[in-house]
Amino acid sequence: MSAKPLPGFRDFYPTELAERAHIMRVWREVARRYAFVEYDGPPLEPLDLYTRKSGEEIVGQLYNFTDKGDRQVSLRPEMTPTFARMVAARANALRKPVRWFSIPQLFRYERQQKGRLREHFQLNVDIVGEADVTADAELLAVAIDMLRGFGLTQHDVRARVSDRRLLSALLARVGVTEEQMPAAYAVIDKVERDPRDVLLERLTQADMTADVAEQVLGFARLATVEELRASHGDDPRVAEQLDRFARYTAHLNALGVADWVVLDLTIVRGLAYYTGIVFELFDLRGEFRAICGGGRYDTLLNALGGADLPALGFGMGDVVLGELLKARGLMPSSDPVLDYWIAVEDQDLLPVAQSTASLLRRLGHSVEYPLREQALTKQLKAAVSAGAREAVILRRDALAGRGEVVLRSLTDGHEESLELGRWLEERIAAAGGPGTNGAPPTPPVF
Amino acid sequence: MSAKPLPGFRDFYPTELAERAHIMRVWREVARRYAFVEYDGPPLEPLDLYTRKSGEEIVGQLYNFTDKGDRQVSLRPEMTPTFARMVAARANALRKPVRWFSIPQLFRYERQQKGRLREHFQLNVDIVGEADVTADAELLAVAIDMLRGFGLTQHDVRARVSDRRLLSALLARVGVTEEQMPAAYAVIDKVERDPRDVLLERLTQADMTADVAEQVLGFARLATVEELRASHGDDPRVAEQLDRFARYTAHLNALGVADWVVLDLTIVRGLAYYTGIVFELFDLRGEFRAICGGGRYDTLLNALGGADLPALGFGMGDVVLGELLKARGLMPSSDPVLDYWIAVEDQDLLPVAQSTASLLRRLGHSVEYPLREQALTKQLKAAVSAGAREAVILRRDALAGRGEVVLRSLTDGHEESLELGRWLEERIAAAGGPGTNGAPPTPPVF
Repeated sequence: MSAKPLPGFRDFYPTELAERAHIMRVWREVARRYAFVEYDGPPLEPLDLYTRKSGEEIVGQLYNFTDKGDRQVSLRPEMTPTFARMVAARANALRKPVRWFSIPQLFRYERQQKGRLREHFQLNVDIVGEADVTADAELLAVAIDMLRGFGLTQHDVRARVSDRRLLSALLARVGVTEEQMPAAYAVIDKVERDPRDVLLERLTQADMTADVAEQVLGFARLATVEELRASHGDDPRVAEQLDRFARYTAHLNALGVADWVVLDLTIVRGLAYYTGIVFELFDLRGEFRAICGGGRYDTLLNALGGADLPALGFGMGDVVLGELLKARGLMPSSDPVLDYWIAVEDQDLLPVAQSTASLLRRLGHSVEYPLREQALTKQLKAAVSAGAREAVILRRDALAGRGEVVLRSLTDGHEESLELGRWLEERIAAAGGPGTNGAPPTPPVF
Repeated sequence: MSAKPLPGFRDFYPTELAERAHIMRVWREVARRYAFVEYDGPPLEPLDLYTRKSGEEIVGQLYNFTDKGDRQVSLRPEMTPTFARMVAARANALRKPVRWFSIPQLFRYERQQKGRLREHFQLNVDIVGEADVTADAELLAVAIDMLRGFGLTQHDVRARVSDRRLLSALLARVGVTEEQMPAAYAVIDKVERDPRDVLLERLTQADMTADVAEQVLGFARLATVEELRASHGDDPRVAEQLDRFARYTAHLNALGVADWVVLDLTIVRGLAYYTGIVFELFDLRGEFRAICGGGRYDTLLNALGGADLPALGFGMGDVVLGELLKARGLMPSSDPVLDYWIAVEDQDLLPVAQSTASLLRRLGHSVEYPLREQALTKQLKAAVSAGAREAVILRRDALAGRGEVVLRSLTDGHEESLELGRWLEERIAAAGGPGTNGAPPTPPVF
């Protein structure tokens, strides 16, 4: 039997599962605070859900096949088409704005590079039904507060924000024509990666003059609304976009996240997709790929045959985020934790161990006891391996004579003898149980 | 665009997702109390992982295909082969007994019947490395305590338990030969479904005498260890199995779950798979399919090319369980819940609403505010739709003059005016924040 998963797929042993669970727990908790509710769709969808959005060329990257009912199907490579389908099916009934999130596992068949996975979990957060920049600010704020929830600060991460409409107005202002826009966007997208002369060459190949090309590249260096207003604010179309962007940043300020945000016109993202403000979150040291990216896609739901509603959203994957948290020492220990290990001197005491375990578990404690006969020293070693905080040690004489057991702290070794019945009654009382009559409490509420 | 998922696949809108999340939350919480730790594997695996266990005939039920790297792969129809692979890869390093659980989504392409799904989520709980019935009792106890965690009682559900080794000894005792065993098992498996004369016919076709056949069917009516001991306990092989089964039930008793359990020799389950105690959990009214099933499979890990370790486990799906919880009124309301809705008299007050929302969210509260200009009455209606418990109403005059806002209960309509700054300071203090200096507290620990 192959001892390994398929290339690009992960086994989650308990240690890795605990890390994944930590990431999902923080995502869910912060989403809840922002009043986003969770949804999910099938991991397998009709193939045309993806080709309608991305064209036939996406098929090369998909886990697609023909099912036994002769349907063309695919593992989901992204969540947005499913989201669009689900919103469209209930577009009228849903309260607006729709505030939804999901944590799908996504699949892409990519030529494998070192460390590149073919699956990952990706948080998707979307707002549907609000065109104002208030929604854009709310969306970026929830993304940033999630990173805060992991213990990251504005000294670790920067949100780089651009605005498709602002950039269009600026490019038009310096003489880029409608036809030249895609070339200008493509070059701006590559400003950090490709050499300056290559970029200039591409712009002049798109029939821009050297002067226009220089001005296009210049936008990559302009970093504040004030700089843009000073240089181009006399153009009323630019001024309108700057005013809106300034309202956006005022909202970010009121939401307490402005410290994390910079204007960066080199953030372009998908050309066919986004229509307004777009953003990406990066670690400040530049060690990792983007942690998160998203923006406004006001025409996409309609283009997918769905609802004609403005929308915006972002995705945040578990892989880069997990690497960053580990690099910054912010991934909590995934060592096992157990409240009590119940050790028995001999196997005849097992029923006492079992009924004690049963009661403690019903009170919400995690408890383990030995399933086979073992020396006490071996049991206590197992208790430490299991991450137990305390051992309850049952010895025949003490239990038969005085009803006593030993409670040993496995952190500092402190021991005390206590009367088992009374100690359990105290545990019941502490859990808000029925007090001192010793009866097991009603099952706790989850 | 198709408005529907593939046949047999579910969309989880927020209502359905909340129900699924409730089920998973209880599973995880009870598993934790029993010191089981969570793992997961890939939803896509090499096809031979499944054909090695179940033969080529399983392929007809799989979502299998050839991937772009020419690998034969399949969506996972069950978790055990992945579990076996993962345990085998670290068999020596893992502390025994291994106590693991997982909640995979599983996929089977079955001819669609009404309401039959092609995917479901299935809790898998397994113990590896312990041959004693202590482990069998621990396994059934965690299954039963999970049902308790959902609010079910021994008046709702019964665990029907059999033992492959006990049944074999009994069948041998009444004269069933080794070659006739599979036929006897197959008939006993069908005792509740098929007519008596059909069953007798099948047994005589397997060369059993009428007398042996009658005795085989008779085991279906024997319901207690005492009855079996009285009628067959003089056979030492039967007595040995009855003694072990009695130890098992004593452990169940000490673990506080014996009330839920009956001996039922008609529980057979997979012939090639299980080697010892097997069990299924059913609703007592007989309205639903089995809620849960499992047992001991001591030879399977080795047969899968993995570790030569005794093992046992069970599966519990989300579908039948969810139907049962709904039928018994035990599925909690999935209505949305929100701590605060912050309403504004006019849009100029939005920054106050946003900074108030930001602070309350950092204290752990869920908060929404209007992203667009709306009349106060409309906002309060939206607040009710959002499930808000309280509305914080910001009016220009009260806020500008006395720094006051109105806190309205949306459950009983009670209103009080309060000074916003002081109220927020109280919220910070209540959350264990830095007290009365008004600074936002450090991000709460998750």
